[in-house]
Amino acid sequence: MSVKLVKNAVGRMIPTEINGKPAIPFKGVGKHRPIGRKYAPPIATCTDYPDDGNKLAPDLKTALIKAGLKDGITISTHHHFRNGDLVANKIFNITFKLGVKDLMWFPSASFPCHEPIIEHLKNGTVHHIEGSMNGPLGRFASQGKMKGVGVLRSHGGRYQAVQDGDVQIDIAVIAAPTADPFGNANGLTGPSACGLLGFALADSQYADKVIIITDNLVPFPCIPWQIHGNYVDYVIKEDKIGIPEKIISGTTRITKSPDRLHIAELTAKFCNVTGLIKDGFSFQSGAGGTSLAIGNYFGKIIREKGIKARFARGGSNKFLVEMLEEGLVEYILDGQTFDLEGVRSMRENPNHVDTSPFTSYNYHGKGNFAPILDIVILGATEVDVNFNANVVTHSDGYLLHGIGGWQNCLFGKNVILPIPLFRDRIPVIRDEVTTICGPGELIDVIVTERGIAINPCRRDLMEKVKDSDLPIKTIHELKDEVEKICGKPRKAEFEDKIIAAIKWVDGTVIDVVKKVKE
Amino acid sequence: MSVKLVKNAVGRMIPTEINGKPAIPFKGVGKHRPIGRKYAPPIATCTDYPDDGNKLAPDLKTALIKAGLKDGITISTHHHFRNGDLVANKIFNITFKLGVKDLMWFPSASFPCHEPIIEHLKNGTVHHIEGSMNGPLGRFASQGKMKGVGVLRSHGGRYQAVQDGDVQIDIAVIAAPTADPFGNANGLTGPSACGLLGFALADSQYADKVIIITDNLVPFPCIPWQIHGNYVDYVIKEDKIGIPEKIISGTTRITKSPDRLHIAELTAKFCNVTGLIKDGFSFQSGAGGTSLAIGNYFGKIIREKGIKARFARGGSNKFLVEMLEEGLVEYILDGQTFDLEGVRSMRENPNHVDTSPFTSYNYHGKGNFAPILDIVILGATEVDVNFNANVVTHSDGYLLHGIGGWQNCLFGKNVILPIPLFRDRIPVIRDEVTTICGPGELIDVIVTERGIAINPCRRDLMEKVKDSDLPIKTIHELKDEVEKICGKPRKAEFEDKIIAAIKWVDGTVIDVVKKVKE
Repeated sequence: MSVKLVKNAVGRMIPTEINGKPAIPFKGVGKHRPIGRKYAPPIATCTDYPDDGNKLAPDLKTALIKAGLKDGITISTHHHFRNGDLVANKIFNITFKLGVKDLMWFPSASFPCHEPIIEHLKNGTVHHIEGSMNGPLGRFASQGKMKGVGVLRSHGGRYQAVQDGDVQIDIAVIAAPTADPFGNANGLTGPSACGLLGFALADSQYADKVIIITDNLVPFPCIPWQIHGNYVDYVIKEDKIGIPEKIISGTTRITKSPDRLHIAELTAKFCNVTGLIKDGFSFQSGAGGTSLAIGNYFGKIIREKGIKARFARGGSNKFLVEMLEEGLVEYILDGQTFDLEGVRSMRENPNHVDTSPFTSYNYHGKGNFAPILDIVILGATEVDVNFNANVVTHSDGYLLHGIGGWQNCLFGKNVILPIPLFRDRIPVIRDEVTTICGPGELIDVIVTERGIAINPCRRDLMEKVKDSDLPIKTIHELKDEVEKICGKPRKAEFEDKIIAAIKWVDGTVIDVVKKVKE
Repeated sequence: MSVKLVKNAVGRMIPTEINGKPAIPFKGVGKHRPIGRKYAPPIATCTDYPDDGNKLAPDLKTALIKAGLKDGITISTHHHFRNGDLVANKIFNITFKLGVKDLMWFPSASFPCHEPIIEHLKNGTVHHIEGSMNGPLGRFASQGKMKGVGVLRSHGGRYQAVQDGDVQIDIAVIAAPTADPFGNANGLTGPSACGLLGFALADSQYADKVIIITDNLVPFPCIPWQIHGNYVDYVIKEDKIGIPEKIISGTTRITKSPDRLHIAELTAKFCNVTGLIKDGFSFQSGAGGTSLAIGNYFGKIIREKGIKARFARGGSNKFLVEMLEEGLVEYILDGQTFDLEGVRSMRENPNHVDTSPFTSYNYHGKGNFAPILDIVILGATEVDVNFNANVVTHSDGYLLHGIGGWQNCLFGKNVILPIPLFRDRIPVIRDEVTTICGPGELIDVIVTERGIAINPCRRDLMEKVKDSDLPIKTIHELKDEVEKICGKPRKAEFEDKIIAAIKWVDGTVIDVVKKVKE
C-alpha cells in the first residue's frame, strides 16, 4: 500500500489519507476554513428511556452490549483519572472476552496504567488509538507495532473533531466520581474525586450511546451536573473506578534545581519588565516544577504591586488555590485539577470554575478562551531556530507524550517557553525539531538558564526589554551555546512507515511521526 | 386557499400543513417516533472572531445588520424578564425602521408589555408569532388578524423544535442581566437580574447568529456562564434592558380566598393520605395563590413528619426558598425565578440550581426530569369529563395564555389539578374543553372546593383513599354540581379560520384554535 504524500505549510510531508479517511495538510495558522455543519446525533425520544429516570444497568458488559458493541466501532474514554484509571482496561478486557475486533479507542489521553491495552492491540481487539499516548503505548506505536495510524489531537482539537464529525463516537464510557441513576454526574465528590469531567463533554454531547460508570451513586439529583444525564443511556455502579493516589498528578512540587529556579525567576522578571503583569491580567502555567516556581514568583510580584490577576487558568494545584484564597487571583478557570486542594477548592469556591475543551480551546467555535490569556507558560521537548516546537516526541524519535492543551494555548497573547538548554546532555534548542507540534509564529519567547530569546516577529517585546538588564540573546546564540556544551545533536532515524499523525487545532495535519529505526 | 384537515388521536381536526410546513397530527402519548438527526448549525471558526475575545458591537441595529437581518428570517427572544422586557419591542422597532418584512418572531413567551408588536404585525414587519401569547397578542390572533398561524409549544416542545430543526432560528437576541465582552452571560446579578437564562439555551446552541444584550457588562470572565460565550457572535451594552419591578411575577401571594384555601388544604391532605408525601419525595407547584398555599401545607406536613423532600421544582419564590433554607427541601431545581428571593437564593445557595427546558422537559432527549417528580400541581382554564385539560384559551374561545411547562409536567408520577369548579360563574369542569392541551390519560386527580375526582385509570390512588374521609367524587358528579350552580355552559363560537396550532411535546399537533366569531 503506497500512500501519497504532500508538503504542508511548515514543510512536512503529509499523507493525503489516514486510516482510510482523507487528511488535509496544515495550511498555516488561521488559513483553513471549515465547511459544512456540525455532527448531528440521532434524535432520541423519552419513549425509549425509563419513566422513573432510573437508567441503572447491571454491569458494564451488559451496558456495552445494549449500547450496540460490535466489530469496528469507536469507544471513547476520558483521562481525568490520569494514571489511576481503572475503567479503560476493563472495557477492553470485556470486549476481548466477547471476541469483538478492530475497535478504535478514542481516549482524551492514555497513561502508563493503560499498558495492558498493548495486549489488545496485539490480539486484534483494538485496531488503533486516536488520542495522546503517554509512555508505553506511544513506544509500542513508535516501534511500528500498531495496526492503524495513531492520531494525536490537542484538547481543543479533540472537541473540534467530535463536534465536526471527523470522529464519530459510537459508545462513550464516562467514568464519574459521583452520579445519579439518571446519569447526571460530576467529579467533585466520592472516593475517586478528580475535580471535573470537561474532557468528556464532547463525548456526552455527540456519542451515539453514553455509559456513565461510577463508584459513588447518589439519589437524583446529582448536583452539580457537570455531565447532563439527558445525554446518558446507561448508568453502572462499580466498586472502584480509580486509584485516588494515582488520580492526582505527582508533579506538583516546586523545583529545587538551581537552574530551573533561575529559569523561573527570569521568566517572572521578563513578564514584569515587559509590563505583562498588571492589574487585571491573566495567566496560565502548568503543574511542572518550573511552572510552579513561576507561579510563586508571579505571586510575589502581584503582592508587591498590590494588584490582582483577573483570572488564572488551571490545571489547578495547591499553589494556585492559595493565590485564589489570598485574593491575588479573582478566578481560576480550570480544565483539570492536579491535586486534592484543586478538587476541594473547585467543590467549595464558586470562583474556582470548571471549564471544558469547548469553552477553552475549541477552534471551530465562536471564539474560545485561549486568546484572551495575557501570559501563557508552556513546555516543549524541543524548539528549533524558527521557534517551532515539539511536545510529543523525544529527540530519539519516540512518541512518548500527548499534546494536551498545548497547541490551543499557543493562541495566548504572550506565549513563553521556559526550557533548559539541554536535558541529559541532549540539546533542546536545535536546527530542526523532530516533530512540529506548533508553528514558530505563535511562540513568542524562549527562556533558558543562559538567556532569553524573543521571536523576531515580536518587535514590541524587543522594544520593551531594550533598556533592561535581562540576558536577551538570539535563538541562534542560544543554539550555539548549547552545541558548545553538548555538541551538535544527532537527528533521530526513522523508517518510512507513518505511525502517528499530529493534528493542528483546525483538524489539518501539521506533522507525522514515523517508525523509529531499530 | 383550502387546507386539508385530518382527525388526530384526541378527535380534533388538524391541518396537514401549517405556515407552509407539513404538520403531524397527535398520535397518542408516546406514539410518535422522531426520525433523523438533530439540527446541525454551521461549523464556526475562531478565525472569524476577534483575537482578544471582545465581541462588543456599537448597538443593536448594527449587530442585527451584521447578523444578516433580512426579510422572512426568524428572530428569537426569551421571556425571563416577563412583563418587564424592554428588548423585543426594541428589535421590531429597529426592523420596522429598516423596512424589513415578514419576520417570524419566536419568543419563548410574549406578555402584555409586547402589545406594541401588534403594530408590526399590522405593518408587515412581523408575519406571525410562534410562542406563547399571553394577553393582547393572543386576543389579536383570536380576532383573525395575524397573517400566519400562531404555533404554541411547551417549554420542552420549544427546545425539541429547535433541537430537531422544526424551527431554525436565524438570529437569537438574548437579553442578559450580566455579560462579559466574550458573550458569557447570566441572570443572577445586575439591575435587571432575573435569576437564570434557561429559556434561551436552545437559542444559544442552535441559532445561526447570537446577540447578547446587557445592561451590566463585566470584564471577562462573567461567572457563572449560564450562557456560553462560545455560542455568541455579538455583545451589546444598553442602558436598560428590563424594568426590574415587572420582571418579578406579581402573583406570589398566598391566596386569602376561603374556597381556594380549602382546595389547597384538600390537595395537601390528599397527597398525605395517599402516602405521596414521604421521605425523599419530590414536588413541583406553581406560583399562583393556591399553589403557594399548597406549598405551605406541604411544609407543615414535612415538618410534622420530620422528613425531607429530596427536591422541589421551581418557578421559585420566597416560600420555596424558606423551605430550602429551613432544610425541608434538599434542592430546588429551578426553571424560572418568580421573585427576588428566588434570584438571591439561586445566586447564593449551591443547592438552588438553575435548570433549562433541555434538562427538565425536552421529550426528544434521553429522558428528562419531568417524569421523576412524585407530585405535580398544575392549573387549567377548563377540564372535561375525560380529564382532558385546557390552559391556553378561555371558555369564550380567546387565546390568552401560553402553555409554559404545563404539558411537560403532565409526565410527573401524580399530576394533580387543584381548580375551582367555576370562575366568573362559568364552569371549569365541562363536557368538552374548548382546546385540548393535555390528554386526560396523563391527568390523575382534580381537586375542587366541592370534592376530589380521581382519574379512573388510577385504581391505585382510588384504593389508597377508600377508607379516608376525603370527599371523593366522580368527575361527572363534579360537573353536575357546577352545572346546578351555573347552568350548562355555552360553547365558544368560532369561524373556520385556524389562528393557532397547539403542539404536543413531541412536535405533533394536539389541537388548533380558530378565529372567534364576533
